[in-house]
Amino acid sequence: MTGILYGVGLGPGDAELITRKAARLISDAKVIAYPTLAGGDSFARSIAAEFLGNDVREIKIDVPMQVARGPAQAAYDAAASEISAILETDMDVVVLCEGDPFFYGSFMYIYARLKDRFPTEIVPGITAMTASAAALGLPLAARNEMLSVVPGPLPDAELRQKISAADSVVIMKVGRHLGRIRNVIEGLNLLDQAHYIERATLPQEQKMPLSKAPDSAPYFSMILITKEADPWL
Amino acid sequence: MTGILYGVGLGPGDAELITRKAARLISDAKVIAYPTLAGGDSFARSIAAEFLGNDVREIKIDVPMQVARGPAQAAYDAAASEISAILETDMDVVVLCEGDPFFYGSFMYIYARLKDRFPTEIVPGITAMTASAAALGLPLAARNEMLSVVPGPLPDAELRQKISAADSVVIMKVGRHLGRIRNVIEGLNLLDQAHYIERATLPQEQKMPLSKAPDSAPYFSMILITKEADPWL
Repeated sequence: MTGILYGVGLGPGDAELITRKAARLISDAKVIAYPTLAGGDSFARSIAAEFLGNDVREIKIDVPMQVARGPAQAAYDAAASEISAILETDMDVVVLCEGDPFFYGSFMYIYARLKDRFPTEIVPGITAMTASAAALGLPLAARNEMLSVVPGPLPDAELRQKISAADSVVIMKVGRHLGRIRNVIEGLNLLDQAHYIERATLPQEQKMPLSKAPDSAPYFSMILITKEADPWL
Repeated sequence: MTGILYGVGLGPGDAELITRKAARLISDAKVIAYPTLAGGDSFARSIAAEFLGNDVREIKIDVPMQVARGPAQAAYDAAASEISAILETDMDVVVLCEGDPFFYGSFMYIYARLKDRFPTEIVPGITAMTASAAALGLPLAARNEMLSVVPGPLPDAELRQKISAADSVVIMKVGRHLGRIRNVIEGLNLLDQAHYIERATLPQEQKMPLSKAPDSAPYFSMILITKEADPWL
């Protein structure tokens, strides 16, 4: 007998956008784990804070802020080792995940290391993508429209091709690439159909047409391009 | 003064995947509206049933099951008219939406008709896309991978092109197109990376490799193609 590894999505930041299932699992958890940035704060923990029990055991997954993969790989190895030691004692571990665990989330790296050894359950969360569309009042896709999710760090030529090929485009991980991405979008004559949003659903949320966005953005920012008109029907 | 039009996402079917915000809004609602299929049952209402007050007023949006757009357009016109009459009396209306209101949802047609006349608030919901990935245990996208969401009714050539261009592909609205879509995927040598799921998170959920899927599928079904290997890091 071993415990269950739970990957629990918390949504984009507003604690009211946590699902009832996630709230129950976190409230009942004896052991939780969550990513921290270079040993500092954990956004995931802050979203879930009101549900944590007083005597819950907390495992920090210290992800170094580097482009090189080696140090991050070592951090996931260490966390997976610590989590597996607990699962082997028949205790469950609830891993807190910003957004959705399988949508550009770091939980995947823990999951890949442990899924063949332990029972797992993934609880989906509200993605920043749908939360941003909701905050902007812009439908993502209707009818037979195609939606593409494109990471902002891709090179210009690839961005250009992916943006051209879809009816709606969500650009994730904008951050320091904002100015470059905006140039690509302007070159495609799509600037008027592009909106920018950062920290969706948090008190610090900012949203505006992309043409008015600043030159650099935080990591939790997104660009939404909707080429179709109002879906009157 | 007018009431607020709420579009509230309910997630894919499991009532525990309703967010706390959606549960609060539905519990407090004096007037709700929801789509029904040709005057019959409402999947949206069934997801939210446990939260409905005893004396809540219910507006049915009877969407005819036809490909022609005229009858559906008339149904949305009629529902928008009924909803606007209530909003004008300073009462809020909570529209129940399967999944997420802005992700291939019918709420968009009500929203398009009323958004310029009334204050609106959209509450995002868990999409069938992330819920299906969670149920299948298959991460959607990591790092700089690109994810495309493609409607199954698209013609073969377009399907082929969209599926080829992305790292991960979610095919929505599979239904009676299942056999044809499978042939396209097989032609691309991607059958081994494709999975099928129907009615994710409901008791009747079915999931399997696409190679073992039946020849026809219900409307609430999806194919997930993940070309990348395990995201070890």
